[in-house]
Amino acid sequence: MDRKAMMEEVRSQMPAKRWEHTVGVMESSVLLARQYGADADKAELAALLHDYCKYWPVDKQKEVLIEHGELGDLLDYDKALLHAPAAAILVRKKFGIDDAEILDAIRYHTSGRVGMTLLDKIVCLADYIEPGRDFPEVGLLRRLAETSIEKALVAGFDSTISYLLGKGQKVYPMTLLARNALLDELKGK
Amino acid sequence: MDRKAMMEEVRSQMPAKRWEHTVGVMESSVLLARQYGADADKAELAALLHDYCKYWPVDKQKEVLIEHGELGDLLDYDKALLHAPAAAILVRKKFGIDDAEILDAIRYHTSGRVGMTLLDKIVCLADYIEPGRDFPEVGLLRRLAETSIEKALVAGFDSTISYLLGKGQKVYPMTLLARNALLDELKGK
Repeated sequence: MDRKAMMEEVRSQMPAKRWEHTVGVMESSVLLARQYGADADKAELAALLHDYCKYWPVDKQKEVLIEHGELGDLLDYDKALLHAPAAAILVRKKFGIDDAEILDAIRYHTSGRVGMTLLDKIVCLADYIEPGRDFPEVGLLRRLAETSIEKALVAGFDSTISYLLGKGQKVYPMTLLARNALLDELKGK
Repeated sequence: MDRKAMMEEVRSQMPAKRWEHTVGVMESSVLLARQYGADADKAELAALLHDYCKYWPVDKQKEVLIEHGELGDLLDYDKALLHAPAAAILVRKKFGIDDAEILDAIRYHTSGRVGMTLLDKIVCLADYIEPGRDFPEVGLLRRLAETSIEKALVAGFDSTISYLLGKGQKVYPMTLLARNALLDELKGK
C-alpha cells in the first residue's frame, strides 16, 4: 500500500480532530528526526501509524492484545495504554510493516520503556509536543526539546505522572522505569 | 535491655532534633495504632527504632546492608533509603528484636512496599505526620489520617514522588508500587 492510501486508511479510523493530531505528530517527528539524526522517513511512518486504533472500542483493542498474548497486566492501569501495543500488532498485519524500530516506536509511544531507542524517543516526545497540544507544561517541553530530547521526555513523563498522582490513579510502572532510565542516560552524558 | 535503656541508646545515635522527631513518630504511631486497631506497644517500639542509624555515615549503613546481602539496587536511588533496612538488621542484633512485624515496619518505613501490613502503614504514616513535621502537604495528610490510613499514605507517597520529580531525581520503583497497591486496596474496600 502506498503512503497516500495508508494515510487515507489511518484517517478513516479516527475523528477529524485525532487525524489533525496525527499529522502534527508526523510533522514534529520529522523535525525531531532531522534534529537528532534519525531516519526521518521511519519517524514519519511510525508517527502516522501510532494512534491507528486509538478510537476503536477498548474491548476491540483488548481483543487484539489477548489474541497475540500481549495483554499482560495492562488492564490494571489506564485504558489509554492499550492502543499503543495494539496498533503495533495491527499495522504489521494490515500494512505489512516489518521494521522492528518502527513497530517498537509505536508500541512504546504512550508508556515509554527502559532503553528507549532514538526513534522511540522521537515519536513519544512528538506525541507530547505536536503543534496542536496545549497543556500547562507543553511550552517547557518544547523549549527542552530544542537542546535535549531526553530532558524533554523526562519532563513529559513528569507531567503524565503528576497528572495521574493528582487524579488518584495508578501509574504504569514501566513509565516510571523509563523516566529513571532517561535520568541515568543523562547522567552518563 | 529495658525500654528506657533502649531509648537512651537510640538517642545517643542521633542529634537532638532527630531524637525529637523519633519521639514524635512514637507518639503518632501509638495514636494511629489505637485508632486503627493495631498493637500500640509494637507500634511504639518500631517507631523508637525506625531511624536508629539514620545519622550514621552512609558508608557505614551501606556496609551493614552489604554484610547481610541486602544492598540490592538501593545505591541507584536516594541515599535516604539505606537507613531503613540497615536499622532493621541492626536492631535485631543489638536489641534482640525478633518480631517480624516490627522489623518489617522498620525496614519499609521509607520505601513502603506492596502489601503493607497495618504496622508498616502506621510507622510510615507517623513518620510523615508526627507533630514536628512541617511540609506543604502535611495538613492534608493529617486530615486524611483521621478517616483513612490508606488515603493518607497515598497522599504521603504522592508528596514524596512529586518532590523527587521536581528535583529531577529518580523515584524508587517500590514506592510507586506501594502507592499503586494502596489504591487497589482502597478500591477493594
